[in-house]
Amino acid sequence: MTTARLPLASRTTDLVGSVIDSSTSLLAKQQHDIVRFAMGSPAPDAVPAHVLRELAATELDRPDAYDYGASEGDPRLREALLAELRGTTDETSPERVLITAGGMQGLDLAFKLFVDPGDLVVVESPTYTNGSATAMSYQAQLLEVPVDDEGMQVDRMEEMVEQAGRAPKAIYAIPTFQNPSGASMSLERRRRLIELTQRWGSLLIDDDPYGRLRFAGEDVPSLHELADGDPLVLSVRTFSKIMAPGLRVGWVDADPSLQQLLINAKQAMDTCTNLPLQRLIAAFLEGGHLREHLATQRAAYRERKVAMQEALTEHFSGEARWTDPEGGFFLWVTFGDEVDTEALFEQALADGVAFIPGNAFSPSKFFPNALRLCFASSEPDRIREGVARLRTAVDNMGKL
Amino acid sequence: MTTARLPLASRTTDLVGSVIDSSTSLLAKQQHDIVRFAMGSPAPDAVPAHVLRELAATELDRPDAYDYGASEGDPRLREALLAELRGTTDETSPERVLITAGGMQGLDLAFKLFVDPGDLVVVESPTYTNGSATAMSYQAQLLEVPVDDEGMQVDRMEEMVEQAGRAPKAIYAIPTFQNPSGASMSLERRRRLIELTQRWGSLLIDDDPYGRLRFAGEDVPSLHELADGDPLVLSVRTFSKIMAPGLRVGWVDADPSLQQLLINAKQAMDTCTNLPLQRLIAAFLEGGHLREHLATQRAAYRERKVAMQEALTEHFSGEARWTDPEGGFFLWVTFGDEVDTEALFEQALADGVAFIPGNAFSPSKFFPNALRLCFASSEPDRIREGVARLRTAVDNMGKL
Repeated sequence: MTTARLPLASRTTDLVGSVIDSSTSLLAKQQHDIVRFAMGSPAPDAVPAHVLRELAATELDRPDAYDYGASEGDPRLREALLAELRGTTDETSPERVLITAGGMQGLDLAFKLFVDPGDLVVVESPTYTNGSATAMSYQAQLLEVPVDDEGMQVDRMEEMVEQAGRAPKAIYAIPTFQNPSGASMSLERRRRLIELTQRWGSLLIDDDPYGRLRFAGEDVPSLHELADGDPLVLSVRTFSKIMAPGLRVGWVDADPSLQQLLINAKQAMDTCTNLPLQRLIAAFLEGGHLREHLATQRAAYRERKVAMQEALTEHFSGEARWTDPEGGFFLWVTFGDEVDTEALFEQALADGVAFIPGNAFSPSKFFPNALRLCFASSEPDRIREGVARLRTAVDNMGKL
Repeated sequence: MTTARLPLASRTTDLVGSVIDSSTSLLAKQQHDIVRFAMGSPAPDAVPAHVLRELAATELDRPDAYDYGASEGDPRLREALLAELRGTTDETSPERVLITAGGMQGLDLAFKLFVDPGDLVVVESPTYTNGSATAMSYQAQLLEVPVDDEGMQVDRMEEMVEQAGRAPKAIYAIPTFQNPSGASMSLERRRRLIELTQRWGSLLIDDDPYGRLRFAGEDVPSLHELADGDPLVLSVRTFSKIMAPGLRVGWVDADPSLQQLLINAKQAMDTCTNLPLQRLIAAFLEGGHLREHLATQRAAYRERKVAMQEALTEHFSGEARWTDPEGGFFLWVTFGDEVDTEALFEQALADGVAFIPGNAFSPSKFFPNALRLCFASSEPDRIREGVARLRTAVDNMGKL
């Protein structure tokens, strides 16, 4: 097929898509048993389907649940959300909040409002595939700043920006249990990041889907809290990881001066976020289900992370290294230079285990020998089985 | 509030928002009784809430309904949709279809893929507010082509494009029961529109949310059918008007060569459309509910349109004229030049009736003395009451 006849916009040359999202379709088509470490999904048993279905019996029986909702979000969900966040590091106020179609639409809004073609945008390296893809869809020029065990190397960012000779228009950070590395930015780096943002007059996009899923270590204040109302910090949040990704409901927390622009931009994207599921989430929050649900999830994910690390030690000790996240969903595994994880992906799929190759998380493809494993989606026994299959796949590649 | 400190993108100057969408919030805040002719919503009694709630008891009890869905849409909904469309004027094939967050996301995808800043885009005048707003959000230069009782004046478009001296990048048409005029494009104009599109090499965006809601007159083939697979025609469809707008589920029907680009663009917008409501719609279609539901709706809307026309004749005969749609949701009312419908809106709200002022449907504000009335949302008695209140409001303005 060719699109040569079609008068496409110039930005289409930068529309790279998402290896992660496309793996959803790819995996759905496989007929054999596969241990799924690929998608960043909560485990089926960690989704409160039964509670939501019970709430649906009341909420979805009302015709007004199916009408257009307010573009800024259903008043009931907005109120329940603000109450839920009170006392947390993401506490906020109504004039700052816009309900979105998941965290992804928060990113789309941020980049659409701030990025002109050619603008410099800092991303972490590795970073969340769809985040960098969205910046690219507005023709940003990306600057990939390395991540280590304390998150984005902020000093390195300063050097790289100086070298680039111009201030970034936006800095895209996933400070807590980063996707894909699992690393969390230290308090010192968070403070320094905000300082540099202010010095450069850049927008700081604080994407923190996993912050409430800490299962080890000490809480660190969110960038949102540390920014203390600085209009340059825009926070993106979602119910995807703390409840369920299929709901496609999240929120943006931004300076009140941006509220009308955010609403205007959202109206040109999808009018409003789906209302029936906003109502289900509101009822879920009002019923006090979220906090209990988070406690259950944290315990499960702690156990799963440990199971995955033990299995990795058993099968790959001395041949690969991996991160030690204190929360969230992901481990980042780095093999020796001789391993090509994109080639390994095909072999692993045949051997019954799926992951996301490292290069999916870097527009410049800096991570050919790394991969992301999601430990959240599978029970410990399945995790052990999956890591054993990964060992088989590596052996079958004849590489290590 | 000021956004002066913020490094906004240049496109934000063209982000106009939607008067329609914002009226959802505005109306929700009113405490007194208001007859709602403003939003393009099916009536509460025309929403199949009870059926959906019964389907939810099974569908929403399954954890897999809450996971990420495929970016191109849930396979089950895609299959049910293709079966549903078989034999209709919108019949299509799987490699052409992408499930979207309502018709609006179809428009966002089309304009994002095709419009570079400064590109010429033809829109109807009047046109759907959010459609033109989305084109503007990508910095299109709009050419507003007048609509008469047979829809967009295609000959006039040809003259205007010749005068502009360059081909439009895209032509945005709502051919059937147009929003806001209610007019339908004749078969001859549809054919001519496709011819001109081909001559110019423009993209033709065929936005047809109301086509299946015909309650009078003869069916006319959709632009999709007439285009017969021409890659320059991209069709946008939605469940918003035939089921319920709050679901935010629609689809794009486009040339297979565009499928991967559409998927890439969607992944950078919202990953995938919400899965639980895709499943509910799939179950609704599988159960054969849609066709029965459409028949009930058509009968109700026919009766409501007649009630509205009769009430307009009673109260405004000789002082205003209005269109005579054969389907869909809307009547377009034009007063004498002395009536300012934006001022009237405030008065009407006080007098207990809401509509959308004509200028909302024209970026150049060509319709200061017109307004859009939705007859679909209210029962005949309420319609009569609402038109009587509109009479009161006009009298209170002291204008006619």
